[in-house]
Amino acid sequence: MERVEVGLVGLGTVGSGFFELMSQNGNHFASKMGSSVEIVRVAEIDTVRAQKIVPKELLVDDYRRVIEDDEIRVVVEMVGGTTVAYDIIRAAIEAGKHVITANKALLALKGAELFALARNKQVELKFEAAVGGGIPIIKVVRESLVGNRIDKVMGILNGTSNYILTQMSEKQLPFEEALKQAQTAGFAEADPSLDVGGGDAAHKICLLASFAFGGWVDYRRILCEGITSVTPGEIEFAASAGFAIKLIASAMRVDGKPSVTVFPALVPDRHPLASVRNEVNAVYLECDFLGPALFLGRGAGAKATASSVASDLGDLVQSLVLHARRGGYPFDPSRELDLHPDQEMEYRLFFHFITENRPGIWAAVTGCLAENGINIESVHQKWEDRSKPSDLYVLVDEAKVGQASKALREASAESGISTQSRFYRILPL
Amino acid sequence: MERVEVGLVGLGTVGSGFFELMSQNGNHFASKMGSSVEIVRVAEIDTVRAQKIVPKELLVDDYRRVIEDDEIRVVVEMVGGTTVAYDIIRAAIEAGKHVITANKALLALKGAELFALARNKQVELKFEAAVGGGIPIIKVVRESLVGNRIDKVMGILNGTSNYILTQMSEKQLPFEEALKQAQTAGFAEADPSLDVGGGDAAHKICLLASFAFGGWVDYRRILCEGITSVTPGEIEFAASAGFAIKLIASAMRVDGKPSVTVFPALVPDRHPLASVRNEVNAVYLECDFLGPALFLGRGAGAKATASSVASDLGDLVQSLVLHARRGGYPFDPSRELDLHPDQEMEYRLFFHFITENRPGIWAAVTGCLAENGINIESVHQKWEDRSKPSDLYVLVDEAKVGQASKALREASAESGISTQSRFYRILPL
Repeated sequence: MERVEVGLVGLGTVGSGFFELMSQNGNHFASKMGSSVEIVRVAEIDTVRAQKIVPKELLVDDYRRVIEDDEIRVVVEMVGGTTVAYDIIRAAIEAGKHVITANKALLALKGAELFALARNKQVELKFEAAVGGGIPIIKVVRESLVGNRIDKVMGILNGTSNYILTQMSEKQLPFEEALKQAQTAGFAEADPSLDVGGGDAAHKICLLASFAFGGWVDYRRILCEGITSVTPGEIEFAASAGFAIKLIASAMRVDGKPSVTVFPALVPDRHPLASVRNEVNAVYLECDFLGPALFLGRGAGAKATASSVASDLGDLVQSLVLHARRGGYPFDPSRELDLHPDQEMEYRLFFHFITENRPGIWAAVTGCLAENGINIESVHQKWEDRSKPSDLYVLVDEAKVGQASKALREASAESGISTQSRFYRILPL
Repeated sequence: MERVEVGLVGLGTVGSGFFELMSQNGNHFASKMGSSVEIVRVAEIDTVRAQKIVPKELLVDDYRRVIEDDEIRVVVEMVGGTTVAYDIIRAAIEAGKHVITANKALLALKGAELFALARNKQVELKFEAAVGGGIPIIKVVRESLVGNRIDKVMGILNGTSNYILTQMSEKQLPFEEALKQAQTAGFAEADPSLDVGGGDAAHKICLLASFAFGGWVDYRRILCEGITSVTPGEIEFAASAGFAIKLIASAMRVDGKPSVTVFPALVPDRHPLASVRNEVNAVYLECDFLGPALFLGRGAGAKATASSVASDLGDLVQSLVLHARRGGYPFDPSRELDLHPDQEMEYRLFFHFITENRPGIWAAVTGCLAENGINIESVHQKWEDRSKPSDLYVLVDEAKVGQASKALREASAESGISTQSRFYRILPL
């Protein structure tokens, strides 16, 4: 029976989860693979903590000891961040080792370089755990959908944001309060900006879009809007109109070009993404042959992430044991994809104007919309107290995002209309 | 560039769908695979019809011409049924060719033999399209979940039944009426017995359970109950109590043994399977590391099925081009799994007693339940007209299916209680 030696670098939450999986299900895994697969070395700086988890004889405190070990054919990078992790992955690939990582931030920033390097060195750089946690969406997109043209990928890819929006909706909480609860419940970091600002979802949709569309999407060109300004009033109004507000990471083909964006959107109640609650992640796809499909599961956490790392490891073991020249489906990272400009995207829209209560406001708002060719579907005003700003909710027909931005800018310049006014996209059913 | 020659046998709905996929997306497919993949021969008895779809030079009217062609390395069997299809698959495997099929009925009946034969001959017998149509659930179960112990697989795997139950629920139709509508809409066959009787779902869960649990499940041992006796009254009452009635194909691990059954069940509204509407299929999984997950998509139709056939073909091309000895993850068909007896399974239950309207009926019903140690949660009676039978709905605490069957049998033997009385299982949330 062939033996595959694995080196693990980083023993935080995710690294420990993977170590636990191999301890618990390693035999089962090996028997399925028909090979013996073993973690033979674990690198972790915090050796005191690490000794509580890993047998002492496996432990080293310097990742270079893993890279230099010629027996090790697969390196699992679980350090996170974009500095040391970059060095580790580069060094491992240079040394001719296959690499598994969950590091979406690093791959979004440096993926074009690292995937190209891996290709050069004829090794695999695998990352199932980087997108959607335990949901096996990368393998599905790369392999199961190989006969399809993928037209649309829409994901709820940030568990923290979805948890917050769910709590805001179900308990009528303001954003700050829901964020605090999420932090207490362990669903949000002390610094939540990458999550609630949409950056984490953007990392993930960058990777998903790249592999769905077969070329590299430059992360820095992805427009990204978070959920920090979503209000309970907006959520309540949206619900009454038949929508849930969700942070959507969207990638779709428009006139042959991918459009890739992250934004909070109104999702129709009957859309499969509308009922995805709390920390759960989901990916909704539309393909020319498969049609619509939904994949849903735990988007984070040590165990779910470990499940995806094991999936990658299984694939690598297959190709190592079969002595295949190179496992996995090819992907060309050198072809950078030209993105469709977000300003040209068309959606039904939901405007929220925050206004003073006095004559002329409606005329100003509706005037700005009219001048930009935007057709009003319905208008709803919530008016509690003449002395306080009121909320003017306007649902409009399909319009370009650029038109809508211009109308919003013009309206916000009018006296009595707050520059905090905004709009959301409405997903089609 | 390496070339992989494919032979297609059978050009009905599904075969045509696959031919269309390869015509439309073949170049795209080939470029992803880095190989040229071509259908070089198509066997179809109805050559007149076939000539409208396939160039004449590819057509033959005898499948043996495909088997005898040494250039062909992959045979796609799209004939269906369990007679000729069996001969085709056997002959192809014997000739050393890889086989792709969507034929769940045949695999459920003869899988143990055919998978063993394929193993012997060192070829792959692939069948992604046989379960869940376009949903890539076989690959997910075999490959993506390789690090997990799969504890539970619950599917809505028969689109016809789900369409009928959805229409019955949303339009308050009796079964026969909803079936007629399904036939008109093209979602049910002229002879729907395999669908509404649960046999088709049983074929599929047989395959899914075998690969989830790593041994062969004998199809003939799967207890199977269909939806023909479900009434609008039951659906209405279930809805008022917070449940949808769905045909569930269930496979789970109980005391180390798999329990595999098909039955109509009450599914709690918040369970991800409850909101799966019409012809859509879905598979819900619980694993020790991944946790709960849901996969949803089109369960039938030419295009969705073709998507799964292409996925299998992609995997085969990978291993052929890489000159791997054998692609795919190993599976042992020779180990037949011992099933957990259905009588021992425990569920909350929903009894529907159909009774005369006279003193003593409640006492008889509750007496039979009490004698079998079944604890009543709530009782609801619908009483329209003294001269007609009335419906007595009883929700009870967790009880063994065997206990429930015995209680039902005893109650139905009492005078005034119909032998048409029945019970449903309630899925846990």
